[in-house]
Amino acid sequence: MIVIMQPGAPQAHIDHVIKTVRDFGLRDHVIVGTERTVVAVVGDERQADLQALENAPSVDRVMPVLAPYKVASRETKPEASIIPLGAHATVGDQKIAMIAGPCSVENRNQLLEVAHAVKEAGAVGLRGGAFKPRTNPYQFQGLGEEGLELLAEAREATGLAVVTEVMSIDQVDLVSRYADVLQIGTRNMHNFNLLVACGASQRSVMLKRGWSATFNEFLLAAEYIINAGNQNVILCERGIRTHEDYVRNTLPLAIIPAVKRASHLPIVVDPSQGTGHAYMVPAMCRASIAAGADGMLIEVHGDPEHALTDGAQSITPEVFSQIMKETKAIAEAVGRSA
Amino acid sequence: MIVIMQPGAPQAHIDHVIKTVRDFGLRDHVIVGTERTVVAVVGDERQADLQALENAPSVDRVMPVLAPYKVASRETKPEASIIPLGAHATVGDQKIAMIAGPCSVENRNQLLEVAHAVKEAGAVGLRGGAFKPRTNPYQFQGLGEEGLELLAEAREATGLAVVTEVMSIDQVDLVSRYADVLQIGTRNMHNFNLLVACGASQRSVMLKRGWSATFNEFLLAAEYIINAGNQNVILCERGIRTHEDYVRNTLPLAIIPAVKRASHLPIVVDPSQGTGHAYMVPAMCRASIAAGADGMLIEVHGDPEHALTDGAQSITPEVFSQIMKETKAIAEAVGRSA
Amino acid sequence: MIVIMQPGAPQAHIDHVIKTVRDFGLRDHVIVGTERTVVAVVGDERQADLQALENAPSVDRVMPVLAPYKVASRETKPEASIIPLGAHATVGDQKIAMIAGPCSVENRNQLLEVAHAVKEAGAVGLRGGAFKPRTNPYQFQGLGEEGLELLAEAREATGLAVVTEVMSIDQVDLVSRYADVLQIGTRNMHNFNLLVACGASQRSVMLKRGWSATFNEFLLAAEYIINAGNQNVILCERGIRTHEDYVRNTLPLAIIPAVKRASHLPIVVDPSQGTGHAYMVPAMCRASIAAGADGMLIEVHGDPEHALTDGAQSITPEVFSQIMKETKAIAEAVGRSA
Amino acid sequence: MIVIMQPGAPQAHIDHVIKTVRDFGLRDHVIVGTERTVVAVVGDERQADLQALENAPSVDRVMPVLAPYKVASRETKPEASIIPLGAHATVGDQKIAMIAGPCSVENRNQLLEVAHAVKEAGAVGLRGGAFKPRTNPYQFQGLGEEGLELLAEAREATGLAVVTEVMSIDQVDLVSRYADVLQIGTRNMHNFNLLVACGASQRSVMLKRGWSATFNEFLLAAEYIINAGNQNVILCERGIRTHEDYVRNTLPLAIIPAVKRASHLPIVVDPSQGTGHAYMVPAMCRASIAAGADGMLIEVHGDPEHALTDGAQSITPEVFSQIMKETKAIAEAVGRSA
Repeated sequence: MIVIMQPGAPQAHIDHVIKTVRDFGLRDHVIVGTERTVVAVVGDERQADLQALENAPSVDRVMPVLAPYKVASRETKPEASIIPLGAHATVGDQKIAMIAGPCSVENRNQLLEVAHAVKEAGAVGLRGGAFKPRTNPYQFQGLGEEGLELLAEAREATGLAVVTEVMSIDQVDLVSRYADVLQIGTRNMHNFNLLVACGASQRSVMLKRGWSATFNEFLLAAEYIINAGNQNVILCERGIRTHEDYVRNTLPLAIIPAVKRASHLPIVVDPSQGTGHAYMVPAMCRASIAAGADGMLIEVHGDPEHALTDGAQSITPEVFSQIMKETKAIAEAVGRSA
Repeated sequence: MIVIMQPGAPQAHIDHVIKTVRDFGLRDHVIVGTERTVVAVVGDERQADLQALENAPSVDRVMPVLAPYKVASRETKPEASIIPLGAHATVGDQKIAMIAGPCSVENRNQLLEVAHAVKEAGAVGLRGGAFKPRTNPYQFQGLGEEGLELLAEAREATGLAVVTEVMSIDQVDLVSRYADVLQIGTRNMHNFNLLVACGASQRSVMLKRGWSATFNEFLLAAEYIINAGNQNVILCERGIRTHEDYVRNTLPLAIIPAVKRASHLPIVVDPSQGTGHAYMVPAMCRASIAAGADGMLIEVHGDPEHALTDGAQSITPEVFSQIMKETKAIAEAVGRSA
Repeated sequence: MIVIMQPGAPQAHIDHVIKTVRDFGLRDHVIVGTERTVVAVVGDERQADLQALENAPSVDRVMPVLAPYKVASRETKPEASIIPLGAHATVGDQKIAMIAGPCSVENRNQLLEVAHAVKEAGAVGLRGGAFKPRTNPYQFQGLGEEGLELLAEAREATGLAVVTEVMSIDQVDLVSRYADVLQIGTRNMHNFNLLVACGASQRSVMLKRGWSATFNEFLLAAEYIINAGNQNVILCERGIRTHEDYVRNTLPLAIIPAVKRASHLPIVVDPSQGTGHAYMVPAMCRASIAAGADGMLIEVHGDPEHALTDGAQSITPEVFSQIMKETKAIAEAVGRSA
Repeated sequence: MIVIMQPGAPQAHIDHVIKTVRDFGLRDHVIVGTERTVVAVVGDERQADLQALENAPSVDRVMPVLAPYKVASRETKPEASIIPLGAHATVGDQKIAMIAGPCSVENRNQLLEVAHAVKEAGAVGLRGGAFKPRTNPYQFQGLGEEGLELLAEAREATGLAVVTEVMSIDQVDLVSRYADVLQIGTRNMHNFNLLVACGASQRSVMLKRGWSATFNEFLLAAEYIINAGNQNVILCERGIRTHEDYVRNTLPLAIIPAVKRASHLPIVVDPSQGTGHAYMVPAMCRASIAAGADGMLIEVHGDPEHALTDGAQSITPEVFSQIMKETKAIAEAVGRSA
């Protein structure tokens, strides 16, 4: 932590900062600059809320030095983590994991048709929501446990790993019985109790970045899950809120090299939520793979115009087939497979 | 809903849109423009996910006409709602509700001293977290039920209404036993299960806007609570995530006239979270009251430098006293009291 | 400047950073932490682009310590600056400067009617664009010099100071002949050649913040003008681009206390551009004054529905009169006048 | 244009809207919905500022239907434009145009070494600033005409096309004498006088998107240039301002399919400005090409740590060579060459 004093800070105020730092069991290091004095704080700054020193007299601001996350960092674990995606696939290895399926499980036919189609095209995972967090209370909220049963049936029929969302603590056990991967949605990335509950599960967890979460907040959310006992965390970028109006969300793909540098966890990209428009999905799949993504999470629906949810950004199985062909070519160009 | 076709859309594609609209039980109204054809959809567009029509051939985009919320709207209830704040105060009436207290309940002395101080200065509510959503898993997570007991004791001693956060469904009953107002934090505004659970409580609910929530999403979250049976919703603006770096959050006060125009619900402002810096709090209190806020939610701590949470943005009781004086003057200037 | 090394950085890499720092004529100060080594750089970091050290081996990141602006800072000039607004008024003094008028000068009648109306209500400045930066090339681009002549005539008739935009270097002399204050628009805040050209003028300059400018960039733009020889800079906040969709721009009023803390320059607020909606203007005027703004810049039009530009956010002279009454009350409440 | 009335709008107010629309020479089409009445406006809405109707009584909001740009649109020109990049290359054709070079021209040796290196690796264009828009007035501002001469010399020596920035109208002629492509920087995208001046030049123009420009504003800026007589416009995405803090700018690659759908103009990507970190540049090059970019604009410096500008985001010629290899593989995978 670096405490920057205001210009002309009296010695008594500098001494006060030093004393406070020492009271926290940390060491200080005072640097008298030409314009300002700086107090560098040595020791593990994570325990103390030193930011509060901004309220001390003559303090201008306080800047953290250490990354706030530990177990999610590459410093702690230099080699990349490879996370199980059900019994037959992984995320984070040489092969890129393609996960596809409808936004919501709507009925048996809809789900099985899509599952067979994406399996045939080369997907290794099946996505589909049984519990749907809906902004609008008047719209379809998901089939609940019936949806989970259909997902399990589809896995039985196709061998695809099932990825589905868990919205609250009391759903963790239920969803864990059916799913291979528990998905934590963007609206719940900061739901710390849910993170801890998923950390106690044996299932892999796919953690979607919050709409406006910072990079550190994203990795700290993973840290919650790992600290609760579950190492199998897959990060998922799904777009952020910005001023842009030709997309529903802005998809910031530079997060891929940033995650690879800072963390050992794999990262997948959701280009459907990440743009909000079906026509952008193929280009964003290619771009994500080229940038180094470990997998894709794609909304596919047999009849997007009549999808109960997210129809505007769902692609058809035919488009998904085409994407798989492009993906394989791009994957090869970057030394991977798909 | 307005469906805008691409230029040169063939009649078959226009017919397809018309058919889809009619299949949803809605009426269509086709307008042939000089450059584009537009299909206006008449009927309640809230039930259907017509946005999916963006995936239909030759459709350019789909624009909603109706506000998605109903019971939170001023159309449904033209007169302003006045919401109870414990036994002795309200939010939304002529008198502005000043709610103050520490970010976290840390111990008995800390809480009671602040409670007495803010009461004496003119506050009607006491804020303080017993369950703390912390981004960083290594930092103080709150006292839990012990914190709730201390809050109840402080109410007993001062008459202040207690406002405190509920983080998950399983805490709703517990917190309802102690608190006058259940606070839903910014990280939980989209936690729809929690909204519904609070909707089943008899307590007033203070709903904080999500960091990146849109206006409609904010009112739809209130709609969830009201639909679940609880009319007593207080909206709270607490700042949004933007590119600005001299603040921790950007406080958008134009939401006050926007809420007053669109909804009957009262709105309070949190200038502590809303800026992240103690030195900005007095100016933002004055500005919020001047803009028409129905109350303020302010972090006050006896020793901000040593606060376990949010020290950088907490003010002292002395500053709060000064704010109350300024607030009263501003309130008078806009025909209210504080 | 603080250079933060990666964990486990070898001594050779630390030595390389030290050497580079010394090559720039700066002093180094090495702090060996428990997890990372930090190199604090002492000396005036403004001349060198030390940020480039991020490219040195084992460097994690580089954080500036000093504010990049000097002559605009309160450290350089502790007392608040009072800037002339024509012959009869100032900005930055006890009296709040109300500046009002149409977005564009459209014709003689339109301008003179508004000028007389706002003068009578209490304004001290007249705004109005003769050169209009229009996003859309097909829309009204302003009357040019004829507009300037009409503005000068309106000043003659009312005594109001004229504030009008200058869009390019070749307009500076022309506009300076007619106007009391040269306005630099939000789209030109980073037009450094124009800043320098206005710095060479004898007129006061009203500098509008760029849509997405940071705080430091805003003050650095003022620095350009002052360094070019013109001390008379008035800052103007006019809203920023964010994800919010119920406003055209988000108005961040916390910039007012931030400017007051960091700079000696006065700040005015434009609530018309700052929200984009006429109905929000009165509330944002009250809020700005309450927060400590030194003036307001408001779009007023005799017939907003038929305004050639910015009709959606223009208020009528009647509403302006009402705002002046409210403003006076708020100003008094904060110990000023209007 | 669609005018949405408030619920319960009286007939007189609807009639008033109708009359106003007709006064503008446009046709109206009234749709009485179950909750609201909507007035659809038929005709070319680009000339009139109908947005001002938001100020008419009982109007809720006004939504445009037509895209505001015309000559930049794919409707006007369905086939993709291929723009000359000097005498030997193009942008927008099957071959992807790689443009590389230093942020600033610093001296003869620096420029020629980089030029030869990037030429050998496969670049077709040389970037380099002679006039530098610097946020900080105390930093290097470019060599001016001497820099242009060096760029011309480097072209002579290597055959690379020269791309360099023009900051103001009075530089257009000068820069046109030396450069093959006039670059309009992000800070000048809204500098309409400069757009028009470049439109009068015979040189191709590379138009960088403003930090916070919307999609429509970006294409309208191109429209200004084309309307002024210059068809040869190359769009360039260089990152936007968001809340993200692990990058200097957020690079929104979904703009590539959006541009391809809406416009005939080619689009290149600047991954150096677009992220602000050298280590992210290779991944963002691969991603951009995979997404369909027509070219790349990359900052390359022989000694990034000592670069006078943008050192943190400059890559070395060795890294550029590696990028060219990866680019060729990706280009092939998407059916192009590089």
